[in-house]
Amino acid sequence: MTIECDLLLTNAIVLTMDKAFRLYEPGAVAGQGDSILAVGPEEALKSQFTAVSNLDCGGKVLMPGLVNAHTHVPMTLMRGLADDLRLDVWLLGYMMPVEREFVSPEFVRLGTQIACVELIRSGVTCFADMYYFEEHVARATAEAGLRAVCSQTVLKFSAPDAQSFEESLAAAREFIQKWKNHPLIVPSVAPHAPYTCTPEILRQTAALAAEYDVPLHTHIAETALEVENMRAENGMPVVPYIKKHQLFDAKVIAAHCVHIDEGEMHTLYHNQAGVAHNPSSNLKLASGFAPVARMLEIGLNVGIGTDGSASNNDLDMFEEVRLAAILGKGASGDPTAIPAQTALAMATRLGAQAIHMGHLIGSLEPGKRADLILIDTNRLHNAPRFRRDPDGVYAQIIYAAKSTDVTDVMVNGKWLMRQQKLTTLQEEELLRQADEYARRMDAFLIQREQSVLAKLIAIGGALEGESFEVQAKVRISDPAPILAALLKPDLEIQYHRHYHEYDTYFLFPEAEQGTVRYREDEFIDDGGGEISNVRYRLTLIGPTREHQFPSDILLSRSRFLAPATHSLRFYREYFKPVAEIAIDKDRRRWKVAYKNTEFYINLDHLNKPELGYFLEVKSRTWSRRDAEYKATLMDELIRYLGASPESAVSEDYLEMVLNDNPLQPLER
Amino acid sequence: MTIECDLLLTNAIVLTMDKAFRLYEPGAVAGQGDSILAVGPEEALKSQFTAVSNLDCGGKVLMPGLVNAHTHVPMTLMRGLADDLRLDVWLLGYMMPVEREFVSPEFVRLGTQIACVELIRSGVTCFADMYYFEEHVARATAEAGLRAVCSQTVLKFSAPDAQSFEESLAAAREFIQKWKNHPLIVPSVAPHAPYTCTPEILRQTAALAAEYDVPLHTHIAETALEVENMRAENGMPVVPYIKKHQLFDAKVIAAHCVHIDEGEMHTLYHNQAGVAHNPSSNLKLASGFAPVARMLEIGLNVGIGTDGSASNNDLDMFEEVRLAAILGKGASGDPTAIPAQTALAMATRLGAQAIHMGHLIGSLEPGKRADLILIDTNRLHNAPRFRRDPDGVYAQIIYAAKSTDVTDVMVNGKWLMRQQKLTTLQEEELLRQADEYARRMDAFLIQREQSVLAKLIAIGGALEGESFEVQAKVRISDPAPILAALLKPDLEIQYHRHYHEYDTYFLFPEAEQGTVRYREDEFIDDGGGEISNVRYRLTLIGPTREHQFPSDILLSRSRFLAPATHSLRFYREYFKPVAEIAIDKDRRRWKVAYKNTEFYINLDHLNKPELGYFLEVKSRTWSRRDAEYKATLMDELIRYLGASPESAVSEDYLEMVLNDNPLQPLER
Repeated sequence: MTIECDLLLTNAIVLTMDKAFRLYEPGAVAGQGDSILAVGPEEALKSQFTAVSNLDCGGKVLMPGLVNAHTHVPMTLMRGLADDLRLDVWLLGYMMPVEREFVSPEFVRLGTQIACVELIRSGVTCFADMYYFEEHVARATAEAGLRAVCSQTVLKFSAPDAQSFEESLAAAREFIQKWKNHPLIVPSVAPHAPYTCTPEILRQTAALAAEYDVPLHTHIAETALEVENMRAENGMPVVPYIKKHQLFDAKVIAAHCVHIDEGEMHTLYHNQAGVAHNPSSNLKLASGFAPVARMLEIGLNVGIGTDGSASNNDLDMFEEVRLAAILGKGASGDPTAIPAQTALAMATRLGAQAIHMGHLIGSLEPGKRADLILIDTNRLHNAPRFRRDPDGVYAQIIYAAKSTDVTDVMVNGKWLMRQQKLTTLQEEELLRQADEYARRMDAFLIQREQSVLAKLIAIGGALEGESFEVQAKVRISDPAPILAALLKPDLEIQYHRHYHEYDTYFLFPEAEQGTVRYREDEFIDDGGGEISNVRYRLTLIGPTREHQFPSDILLSRSRFLAPATHSLRFYREYFKPVAEIAIDKDRRRWKVAYKNTEFYINLDHLNKPELGYFLEVKSRTWSRRDAEYKATLMDELIRYLGASPESAVSEDYLEMVLNDNPLQPLER
Repeated sequence: MTIECDLLLTNAIVLTMDKAFRLYEPGAVAGQGDSILAVGPEEALKSQFTAVSNLDCGGKVLMPGLVNAHTHVPMTLMRGLADDLRLDVWLLGYMMPVEREFVSPEFVRLGTQIACVELIRSGVTCFADMYYFEEHVARATAEAGLRAVCSQTVLKFSAPDAQSFEESLAAAREFIQKWKNHPLIVPSVAPHAPYTCTPEILRQTAALAAEYDVPLHTHIAETALEVENMRAENGMPVVPYIKKHQLFDAKVIAAHCVHIDEGEMHTLYHNQAGVAHNPSSNLKLASGFAPVARMLEIGLNVGIGTDGSASNNDLDMFEEVRLAAILGKGASGDPTAIPAQTALAMATRLGAQAIHMGHLIGSLEPGKRADLILIDTNRLHNAPRFRRDPDGVYAQIIYAAKSTDVTDVMVNGKWLMRQQKLTTLQEEELLRQADEYARRMDAFLIQREQSVLAKLIAIGGALEGESFEVQAKVRISDPAPILAALLKPDLEIQYHRHYHEYDTYFLFPEAEQGTVRYREDEFIDDGGGEISNVRYRLTLIGPTREHQFPSDILLSRSRFLAPATHSLRFYREYFKPVAEIAIDKDRRRWKVAYKNTEFYINLDHLNKPELGYFLEVKSRTWSRRDAEYKATLMDELIRYLGASPESAVSEDYLEMVLNDNPLQPLER
C-alpha cells in the first residue's frame, strides 16, 4: 500500500539543511499541495509514495530555496545609476533625489518584477524587502509567485509615498490588515533606521507589528558614524537605544549590524531578533566588517542579504553567500571561520529564522512549504566532485557553483522556473520597460548635473531665495582710524560680531553657473578671544552683476543660502568643481543705522592669501530706486568712516585671488 | 578605396581599455591574422575596411580578453578536495601529500584542459601559471588556443617533477629554450617563494630568466608569518631580501604582496615588478588585505589573479574583479577607492603589464594581438543601462555582469568560443576524466584518513620506526628515599636530566589506531631551575601490549617518533581527534647501568591532573628472551631503589586519567 501524493522528486542529492544537516544521496522529496510531505532516501520514498507527477532530478542537488534576508527590490531600476561614491553623496546626492522624482506604484511594480526574475534565476524563493509603496511590491511579488516579507517604510522625513510619518504608518496598518493572511506575502512595517526615525516612530511601529504579530524590519548600526552620532546624542549605542524605545516588543529583522559590540549581540539574541548580513553592500560602501562569526557563536540567527541592487549591484545570492563565507574568514583572520555548511545554512535555515519565517521555510522537512531548487553541480567549473567527505557538496555550492547553475525553482508547490525557463514573468518586455525608465532618469540627471542650482536644490539646499544688495569695498592700510570713526555720533551701532571666516569656493567650467561658497564662521568672543560658536553655510553666488554705480558701488544679485549640513568633503564630491579656492579672513562686523538706513560694515583682514585690510559696506535692497539712494548714502558713509572711496575695488575677494593666481584644475 | 582585412567586428560597445580609456559606441574592430588592425567608431571603420569575415556584435560589449595574473591551472583537479582549513593544514596535510601521489604529466594536462574550459567561458584570454611539469601545462594551453605565461616551479624541496632544485632548474632551462618563440606561450621560471627557496635558487632562477629575457614568477609576502620569519631569520622584510639576492635582475611577477610596506612597494615599482592581487584566495585563507589602492597610487602594475582553484575554488575572473573592487573599498575604508574603470583596467591592461605582456595584449590597439571577448550586457540582471555617464558601462561589467554573460572569445585572431560553444575543447570527456581522478584521490585519502599512521607518514612524520621496550611503573608516596637510593654503589649513573613535560594525547574512535602524543619537554637547569631548552615531539603510540610479566612489568610495542615541527593546533586540525587529554608532569630522568644493563629511571610527579609520584623503570629490548631477562632485573632494581613492586600499576598515565575522568568528545 502506497500513499498518494502530488509530486515525487527523485534521483537527487538532497540537502535538507535541517538542524542535523541530513543529506540523502540518492534522495527524494514528496510534495502535497503547497507543502512537503516527506524527505528521505530515494528507495524509501519510492516504496512509500505514488505521485501524480514524478520528476527525475538527474543527480542534481535538491535543496531549500535561498532566503535573501534584506533587500530593496524596486531599486533594481536604479542599478548602476551611480557607483564608487561615498554613502552620503550616493544616498543624498543621487538615490534620494531620483527617488523623490520617480518612485511611484508603477516604478515599484516594474522594479519588483525585474528583481523577481533575477531572484528566481539565482535560486531565491523568499526575500525580506523594505521600500515605499510596499503594497505594490507585495502585489508584483505574489503575481510572480515568490514568497516575501514586505515591509512598508516609515521615517521622519517625507517620502515618495507619504508626506508625513503618520501617513505612512496609516498606510502600513492598512497594508498589514489587508495582506495578513496571504499565502505568499507576510506584510510588515519598517521604521527605516533609528537615525531616520523619532523615538515615537520606533514605539508606534513596534506596537503596530506586535498588534498583528508581524515582523518589524529596520537598519541597525550600518556605519561607524551612525554609532558615533547615537552615542553623542543619546549616550548609548544603537541596540540599547532601540531597546529603550521598545522596538523589541516586535519580532525584529535587524539589517547590517556592522558596528555592534558584544553586549549588543547578546541583547539582540535575548530579544529573538534576526540579523541580515549584507557583505557586498558593506564592502562596496566601505561600511565595515560585521562580526558575523561572533554573532553565530552567540547563537544569533544570521541570514544573508544582497541589500538593494543600487548598492551591490545585483541580487545574486550565490555571490553573496560565497562572499559571506570568505569575508568571514578574512575579517576574523581565521580560515576555519564560517565553513561552507554554515554559510549555506545562513542562506537557508538561519536566514528563514532571521526573518521570522523559520516555521514555514528554510529547510526541507515534512510540513514545511515546498520552496525548493535544483542546482546542476555537474558542470566543469564545479568538477570534480570528491565524495570522500559527503559534506564536500556544501563547499562545491559555496565556493564553486554559480547562480546560473540553478535550473529549477519551486515556491509553495508551484514551479516558477523549469530548466531555466521562467513560468510567470516575461523578461523581454521587462527589459524594454526598464530601459525606458533609465532614459527618463538619465534625462533628469543630465539636466540636473548641468545646473549647480538644480544640484543644490536636489539635496534640499536652497532655503533662502534670491536677493539684491548694494555694496562697496575699499582698500585701507590701517584699521585703527576706522575703529575710532565707528564711535562717532551719527552711527547707531545695533550689534557687533567678530568672526574668523574660512571660505572655500567651488568653481565650475561655465561662468554662468556661478560659484558655490562653503563658509565656516568661527564666532570670536571679543572678551577672551575664544571661539564661542561655529556656523557652516553654503551659498550659491550668481555670476551676474546688475549695475555699477559711481565709486565702484555695486548692485549684485546673489545668493542661494543654506546651512551646510554636510561636510566640505561631501559637497566637493557632490558638486565636482573643476577648481577650488580657499580664502581665510578675520572679520569684524557691525550692523549700524546711518541716517535711518541700515548698513552692514565689515572690517576685514585677509590672511590667506595675505591681501591686507578692507572696509566693506553693504545694504540689502529691493528696488532700483532704493539701490540708487543707498549707493549715494554709502559713498557718504565711507568718507564718514575716514576711508577714501577713491581706493574702492570692484573685484570681490575671489576675483582678487584668481587674478593673482591663475587656476590649476583640481586633480581627481 | 578600402583596405582589405580578415575580420571586421561591428555594432559593439567597444571598450579599448587603452590608457585614455577610449570607448566607441557604436564601435568596430578590424583584425588581420593574429593582430588588431584598427579600432574606432563603426562608421569610420566601415568606410575604411572591407573584410573577408564580418560580424555584427548585436550591441554587445567588445573588449580585450581578461588576464588572470596568477594561477595554478592543474589544481582544478583538486578543487574542493579540502576547504575551510588553515593554510598549513590545507597545504601540508592535503595539497602536498596528494600532489606527491598524483601529479604527473597526465594529471597536469587534464587539469589544464579543465581550467582552459573555465577560463575561456569566463572571458580570460591569457593567464600566468605556476606549477610542476609546466611544459605539459604549456602544451595543453597551446592546444586549447589560449595564451599564457607558463612558469616552471623550482624550490628547495623535492617536487612531483624533480628530486632536487638542480633538476627542476635544468628542466626550466630546457623548457624555456624550447618554447621561447611560441606564438601563444611565454615560458618562464618560478622560484616558488623566498621561504621555499635558498638564496642560490633565487640567484640562479633570476639569472636564467634574465639570460632568456623571460618573466620570473614567484609568491611574495602572502602571509604575516612569512614576513615575521623573514625578519627573524634575515633581519629584513621580503622585498629587500629578494632584491639582495638579485631577483630583480629578472622581470618579476610578484603574486600576493599582502604584507608589504611603503618602502617595499617603491622597491617593486622601481624594479618594474608586476603584482598579482588574489582577493578570493587571500580572504579564503585569511591571509590579510593587500594594500592595493596604495600600490596603484604609487604606479605599480597590479593585475588580478584567481590563484589555484584548490583555494578559490574557481577561475572566475568576473567574481575576482568585482571582489577586488569592493574589497579595495572595504579594506581602505574608502568607497571611492578602486572605481569600476580601474578594476577593469587591473583585469586587462594593468594585468597584462604586470605579467610583462603589455606590449602584446591588455588593450584593443592597432598592432596588438587580437585577444578579445564579447559580453552580453543586455540581460535582466544587468538592466537597466544608464547612458548619462558613458563610463557607466564599466560599473555594469564590474558590479552586475557575470562570467556567464561572455558569449564569444578570440585569442590570437582565432575564435575559441562562439555563442557560448567551445571550438577547441570537449567538456563531456573532460568531466568524465576529472571524475575518474577524483575517485582515485578519494580512495587515497580515505585510506589515509583511516590510518593515523598513514596521516603521520603523509606529513613526513615518522622518522623512527617501531621498537619494543619493557617497563614497570610503581606508585610511591615520597621521592626522597628514591633520590637517596640512586646514590647507592651498584648503580652507575650515565646522565641525569630534569624536564617539565607537557603532553597532549589525541584519541581516536578506533582503539587500534593508537594514540598520538604531542609532547613539549622543557629542560630544567638543575642549578638555577631555569629552562635551558625546549623540545617538541610527536609520538604515535600503538595500542598493542605484547605481554605482561610478573609484577606488572610490561612488554610493549611502540612508537613512531618524530620531531613536532608544527604547532599543537596544526596537529589537532590535521588529525581531528575525537578527544584530547592534557597531562603535565615534572620528570627527573637518569640513564643508569645496573648489572651491566642499561635502564632509564624516571621519577615523575604528575601535576595536572594531580596524581602523585611514580617511579618508572624502562629498557629497550630486541627479543622476547632479552625482554624476559630484563624484566627480572627490573624487579630487582625497583626493590634496590627502595620501592615496592607490589605497588606497581599496569596502567599508563593516560589510562589513569581516563579511568578517573570519563571522556567528553571534543567540540568541533
